Amino acid sequence: MQVHLNPIGAMDLLSQLEVERLQQNTEQSAFQLFRNCALAVLNVGSHTDSSAEIYDQYQNFSINLLARERGIKIELNNPPLSAFVDGQIIKGIHEHLFAVLRDILFYHTRHSVDTNPLDLTNSAHLTHSVFDILRNARVIDATSEPNMIVCWGGHSIRQVEYDYTKEVGYQLGLRGLNICTGCGPGAMKGPMKGATIGHSKQRIRNGRYLGLTEPSIIAAEPPNPIVNELVILPDIEKRLEAFVRVAHGIIIFPGGAGTAEELLYLLGIMLDERNANQQLPIILTGPASSAAYFNEIAEFVEKTLGKEALDLLDIIIDDPAEVAKRLKLGCQAVRQYRKSVGDAYHFNWTLDIQPDFQQPFIPNHQNMAALDLHLEQDKAKLAANLRRAFSGIVAGNVKDEGIRAIREHGPFVLRGETSLMQLMDKLLSAFVDQGRMKLPGTQYQPCYRIEQ
Amino acid sequence: MQVHLNPIGAMDLLSQLEVERLQQNTEQSAFQLFRNCALAVLNVGSHTDSSAEIYDQYQNFSINLLARERGIKIELNNPPLSAFVDGQIIKGIHEHLFAVLRDILFYHTRHSVDTNPLDLTNSAHLTHSVFDILRNARVIDATSEPNMIVCWGGHSIRQVEYDYTKEVGYQLGLRGLNICTGCGPGAMKGPMKGATIGHSKQRIRNGRYLGLTEPSIIAAEPPNPIVNELVILPDIEKRLEAFVRVAHGIIIFPGGAGTAEELLYLLGIMLDERNANQQLPIILTGPASSAAYFNEIAEFVEKTLGKEALDLLDIIIDDPAEVAKRLKLGCQAVRQYRKSVGDAYHFNWTLDIQPDFQQPFIPNHQNMAALDLHLEQDKAKLAANLRRAFSGIVAGNVKDEGIRAIREHGPFVLRGETSLMQLMDKLLSAFVDQGRMKLPGTQYQPCYRIEQ
Amino acid sequence: MQVHLNPIGAMDLLSQLEVERLQQNTEQSAFQLFRNCALAVLNVGSHTDSSAEIYDQYQNFSINLLARERGIKIELNNPPLSAFVDGQIIKGIHEHLFAVLRDILFYHTRHSVDTNPLDLTNSAHLTHSVFDILRNARVIDATSEPNMIVCWGGHSIRQVEYDYTKEVGYQLGLRGLNICTGCGPGAMKGPMKGATIGHSKQRIRNGRYLGLTEPSIIAAEPPNPIVNELVILPDIEKRLEAFVRVAHGIIIFPGGAGTAEELLYLLGIMLDERNANQQLPIILTGPASSAAYFNEIAEFVEKTLGKEALDLLDIIIDDPAEVAKRLKLGCQAVRQYRKSVGDAYHFNWTLDIQPDFQQPFIPNHQNMAALDLHLEQDKAKLAANLRRAFSGIVAGNVKDEGIRAIREHGPFVLRGETSLMQLMDKLLSAFVDQGRMKLPGTQYQPCYRIEQ
Amino acid sequence: MQVHLNPIGAMDLLSQLEVERLQQNTEQSAFQLFRNCALAVLNVGSHTDSSAEIYDQYQNFSINLLARERGIKIELNNPPLSAFVDGQIIKGIHEHLFAVLRDILFYHTRHSVDTNPLDLTNSAHLTHSVFDILRNARVIDATSEPNMIVCWGGHSIRQVEYDYTKEVGYQLGLRGLNICTGCGPGAMKGPMKGATIGHSKQRIRNGRYLGLTEPSIIAAEPPNPIVNELVILPDIEKRLEAFVRVAHGIIIFPGGAGTAEELLYLLGIMLDERNANQQLPIILTGPASSAAYFNEIAEFVEKTLGKEALDLLDIIIDDPAEVAKRLKLGCQAVRQYRKSVGDAYHFNWTLDIQPDFQQPFIPNHQNMAALDLHLEQDKAKLAANLRRAFSGIVAGNVKDEGIRAIREHGPFVLRGETSLMQLMDKLLSAFVDQGRMKLPGTQYQPCYRIEQ
Repeated sequence: MQVHLNPIGAMDLLSQLEVERLQQNTEQSAFQLFRNCALAVLNVGSHTDSSAEIYDQYQNFSINLLARERGIKIELNNPPLSAFVDGQIIKGIHEHLFAVLRDILFYHTRHSVDTNPLDLTNSAHLTHSVFDILRNARVIDATSEPNMIVCWGGHSIRQVEYDYTKEVGYQLGLRGLNICTGCGPGAMKGPMKGATIGHSKQRIRNGRYLGLTEPSIIAAEPPNPIVNELVILPDIEKRLEAFVRVAHGIIIFPGGAGTAEELLYLLGIMLDERNANQQLPIILTGPASSAAYFNEIAEFVEKTLGKEALDLLDIIIDDPAEVAKRLKLGCQAVRQYRKSVGDAYHFNWTLDIQPDFQQPFIPNHQNMAALDLHLEQDKAKLAANLRRAFSGIVAGNVKDEGIRAIREHGPFVLRGETSLMQLMDKLLSAFVDQGRMKLPGTQYQPCYRIEQ
Repeated sequence: MQVHLNPIGAMDLLSQLEVERLQQNTEQSAFQLFRNCALAVLNVGSHTDSSAEIYDQYQNFSINLLARERGIKIELNNPPLSAFVDGQIIKGIHEHLFAVLRDILFYHTRHSVDTNPLDLTNSAHLTHSVFDILRNARVIDATSEPNMIVCWGGHSIRQVEYDYTKEVGYQLGLRGLNICTGCGPGAMKGPMKGATIGHSKQRIRNGRYLGLTEPSIIAAEPPNPIVNELVILPDIEKRLEAFVRVAHGIIIFPGGAGTAEELLYLLGIMLDERNANQQLPIILTGPASSAAYFNEIAEFVEKTLGKEALDLLDIIIDDPAEVAKRLKLGCQAVRQYRKSVGDAYHFNWTLDIQPDFQQPFIPNHQNMAALDLHLEQDKAKLAANLRRAFSGIVAGNVKDEGIRAIREHGPFVLRGETSLMQLMDKLLSAFVDQGRMKLPGTQYQPCYRIEQ
Repeated sequence: MQVHLNPIGAMDLLSQLEVERLQQNTEQSAFQLFRNCALAVLNVGSHTDSSAEIYDQYQNFSINLLARERGIKIELNNPPLSAFVDGQIIKGIHEHLFAVLRDILFYHTRHSVDTNPLDLTNSAHLTHSVFDILRNARVIDATSEPNMIVCWGGHSIRQVEYDYTKEVGYQLGLRGLNICTGCGPGAMKGPMKGATIGHSKQRIRNGRYLGLTEPSIIAAEPPNPIVNELVILPDIEKRLEAFVRVAHGIIIFPGGAGTAEELLYLLGIMLDERNANQQLPIILTGPASSAAYFNEIAEFVEKTLGKEALDLLDIIIDDPAEVAKRLKLGCQAVRQYRKSVGDAYHFNWTLDIQPDFQQPFIPNHQNMAALDLHLEQDKAKLAANLRRAFSGIVAGNVKDEGIRAIREHGPFVLRGETSLMQLMDKLLSAFVDQGRMKLPGTQYQPCYRIEQ
Repeated sequence: MQVHLNPIGAMDLLSQLEVERLQQNTEQSAFQLFRNCALAVLNVGSHTDSSAEIYDQYQNFSINLLARERGIKIELNNPPLSAFVDGQIIKGIHEHLFAVLRDILFYHTRHSVDTNPLDLTNSAHLTHSVFDILRNARVIDATSEPNMIVCWGGHSIRQVEYDYTKEVGYQLGLRGLNICTGCGPGAMKGPMKGATIGHSKQRIRNGRYLGLTEPSIIAAEPPNPIVNELVILPDIEKRLEAFVRVAHGIIIFPGGAGTAEELLYLLGIMLDERNANQQLPIILTGPASSAAYFNEIAEFVEKTLGKEALDLLDIIIDDPAEVAKRLKLGCQAVRQYRKSVGDAYHFNWTLDIQPDFQQPFIPNHQNMAALDLHLEQDKAKLAANLRRAFSGIVAGNVKDEGIRAIREHGPFVLRGETSLMQLMDKLLSAFVDQGRMKLPGTQYQPCYRIEQ
């Protein structure tokens, strides 16, 4: 089976020089990444979070770029059939494929803002880079009102939790709020499905379902076609920055290591006193049966980052309407605050994010072992380090490179102050016990070992 | 709690004379009907199909029309709270309320097409009336393509059947097809929910979810707010005519007496040789576990209306994608046919509907008993009479007036040729056994008695 | 040459019954009127205001209505070629033709608001009728803001005056105001042309150019195709009511008897103390060379209707920007007033118009001679009678029926109080001297005789 | 008077880094250019084509860029009042100001397509650059049909010629064609005004009036606010390339040296045998009184570039409808051709433009004197050289730098083969005699001297 696809979105107007340069990429490693991400997007609906498994299953899948006088086309050979309806590709998947082309291959052929190239050690330059990627993907709208709710949570959650995320999404949709997630399954899909119905009942035809992902996770957590705005950020740090700068409110559903990483990133930034006046409602929520889970999280936060950190969080158990109501009010407060400081609604420029949270962390054995994990340090620093630890565990669990590293060298070793190590061990064990580390179907083998 | 609602849709441009006349209705019986239908629309999501129960529960609910220089407003006193989100009425329900005002009260203040009033014994005039009501409701679009799939089926169906209707709706939505139903729960809601997700994945923002109902059933089967075009036809005969004239394809899911009525109406018309060339795909479908149900139906059709009638039906078990695919192709055939005869896409003018199927049938004890039920008559005539029999049973089951009549005089009596009576008994007993007559929760008491 | 035209606008959704009834009209006198109005619309750009001349020139023009299953078509035989570009009818003229069909033939087949037909002696019923015609023509928009400026003035004006009307239109367009006129040449065309350029510079893509006309004048003053909303009201009285109820401001440019009729109608209404609080800016304006003209008008108004009447008028000479600026401010006052009384922006319901100004005046010799023309009467009554006198003169000048009456019976005779007759004589003589009665090219023969 | 303007168009979404860098420009020479172009845009409607005069008149005008968290603002001090309506800037001028900011300052801060910067000696890179500027200005639309007519002609033409350009524009507009010009007065404004009315009559609400200009000419030929898409290309060569690549048909009205430059550029390219199959209708047209002018041009073309060149031109005298009709047909041929070779409709990629026509020519005394002007050379080469000669004369006439050079060093000297020099002299003298070199009001002093 061979399919040719016409360009859509930002890719429908390329110059011949750009087409030529895109084609020259074919031999390079970026092209392999592009191929794999495209496969992930096409393979949506599959029931595995193992990239390797997917890549194995579709070994005879290939993708080419065809040059035409009028622009570029994508050629697919032996694509997964689930992406097609009566031989026609689903429009949402078609869009996602060109988003992958745009963000993985094309964006990097024109990255410089200037003849002076970007300085990637400079915080302002990194923030520009995040903004530029989002703008290039046309997900920044200067006329929008504050209504974007970022939903974090696990890709592997129980049915009752999934149903709860749908109900929360439905209540958000009824209130005209939009949804942004990491765009995989579980807590990343439920809110969007719920909001679709809520928007429909309120006759909102332009509901936004924004998915922010990264190349190394897209295979494990492919975007559901409901995602109608897809952006692939180059690494987890830029992805996290994108989340917090587009958010007008954040919900954290139950999840595993990835959700913990997100929470720690957020707390580390919000604990910074330069952000003391920032308006950004943060709500942790789940069904009644998840109450224990949130107690666990709350305890960990309080014992590591202190009561001050815990106070930043609003925990609401089993009340979707209340969650949505509070976020609706929160968006009004955001609006007022942004107006008062002259900031944009579509991107939170005034939020201060320190280099500690922006510089990419490479989760290899050496870096993991070298993490400075003890309680007596600046809280923001500690949050940054804890964030890195969880980030490494996510990589070891589901990212291609991480899985390979673990296979070769055994689990990551985390060392540090005993009391902190015990807290981490307790939390991670709970994640394992509750099946939050991986999708069901296999026995979870921890990718880390805690040395106290 | 008191709420004032501004007019929307066709009701936002009334003259002062029209406003005045609407208000004069307040004392009349039509106003009571309006009040009850409004209540039904507001009470969506309730889990009963007994009108009486609903009316009892909301005795202190009242509705008023307020005159303003600029037009009419609706005032609600003590409305059901489920229609509101944070004190704001859900937009879809807001629209439905004004659809009720438009069709129940307003339409009848301007019914005449001419200084010569309509002649309701004249078939062309009755068809005009159906068209005029739909046009006045703005659900006729001269620029639309053939893509409207009418879905019939029971309001009380099993979970596996409901899930199946959703999946069929999803597959229809993926193919850009729109949905029209009787707009109650069960098989009338599932396809719309499914299509909403399918449309979303295909980036179709203007999906149509057309609900056609009638005053006497709206309380038992209130429109789900996903219905974004609601029309209340004055009686079941006009409602059925509206269904078949706007349809470009028809699906029949499992259902009870109402579904049987719809099927017989449709067969009676399609058996008319004047409609021999008509293109109108008809598919009966359900999950694997419903196969026996369709065998029952097929047997009944064949033994009463003959093989010719059975041949008009396409039975597909457990294959939602195939159902959608065949209807997509069917719509193309409809397009071609309509073009060839110069007919509109939005309304099937060339379909011949005989007065037998247009004249309202009043389902009282006398009329039911007088039905001419024997096999040796013209097949279309027989279909018309059988249709009336099932129509009466629906009334006895869920319509206010019917329920009252049964309470007072006992069950309807159906008499006729023994072999036909046995067939009917068998079919109806199956409906009862399978719980298709009423929503679960009570023991079903048949509203009819078959005398052989 | 034969052309078939598909229906557009409100005419694209007719029932077969409506199509049939439209066709039955073919034999009736209304059809002749329809044919003549259609010819006038097609013949735009011709340089005559004599209906008779046009009808003579196109004797072999004919028009038919064709029934199709999907609706009605118009067939033109030997139409004026100026309406076509490379064999294709100009879209604006296409729209106008179906507006003529809608208002001349179709509207009257469905006039009744109710089973109780309209009572044409009842003021509220007459106002409903005006509203209903406008609504049926889809020129009433419930969401619009007050920005409609009605421009009155002569069809036969000097070049310097025409250029001035264009400049005023341009200044109105720059301020986002829309234009409504009687849609003939001269002062009815200039403001629209100017506003088109003004709207274009302000990037207003949905500028409204509303033309209100009547069957008996459409041939003499055919609508320019810039008119993008055309309505044909049945008589001059309803046309005048439509003007003042849709207006948020009124400009009076130099003109002849028709303009005087409009001014007197307006003054008669605004002098009514029930309208004392109404907000409706009225500006008389023209180039420097027209100053004397306005002095004449002002003198006539003051001496007949008094200083109170004169005070209602704002005379601005040679300052288009100031005219537009004042109307822009005036629209804000209108908005405030309408809001304060709960009135609509799109139709002035609270303006009180007495039957004297609503009842059609038939301008025959008898009625003209019977007019009660003396100064000592209620000012509103006097305005109404003077309005009728000028209305008759317009009919004698350019309306088909009037011209025939004059040909047969000689000029109308106007009798009344000497001092008033002298004032009228002076004003009318000035109109004649200035060439405002008819388009240039012929010697004007007065259609009236004043007896003092 | 001080005014702050919010960003619109592509400038409404800048990052803080971009805002910062824009502000750093303030001190540089580019900023002076920006200020002057902004002034020109604001000063539209003035009656001079002398940049110097304008700059002198508004010495106290200044412009600043203000940084806000949410983006950039423009501050104007003492701007020309004609750009404002009741204190509000005209929307079209507002857009033009930000187009100037975008193309003069912003575009150059992000010019590179790649980490490998553009190679400006490479033809493909130069073409990319033209495309990229147009795309960045959002004037390339992937979904458009071939309908863009480029109109060339003089800024200083007689009234009868101007009226003729309006009539041609009107006829083009009636046929749904769009207009692209150099966006100054005269033949650059007339077609747009005419098309506005034509589009209006055809109910085309999204008519395109594309203006392509360059920094050095914008003051002399400021864009009329009807121009709804304005792009400032960096030099005349890129501007000419933009013209011919976006054109689906070209009209040449009477003009002076600039028009001759455009004609020679076009002929030079179309004479290239690599473009032998290109479809691009070229029409020279004017009123009857301009017939002699076109004879002059035809003679010059034939005697210099040969009959082959003359055959590329279609001369139509005094027939606007015929001009428009032929271009309408031409656009269909363009469509067919582009489709057959897989080229885009929105940009003519397959047109071959040699470096001779792409490399900027600096019109100083040395370069002008060094031009190789003799008849016995490749026709395309000769066209290129003649193009440069006329380009220099335009610079000497109206461009700031050119005027200064002439003031300092006297007229340019053109040397070459006698017979060619005589032909040029004859043509240029005719331009001078007919007042086509400069706007009326001053005595024209030639900026060149021909040595034979």
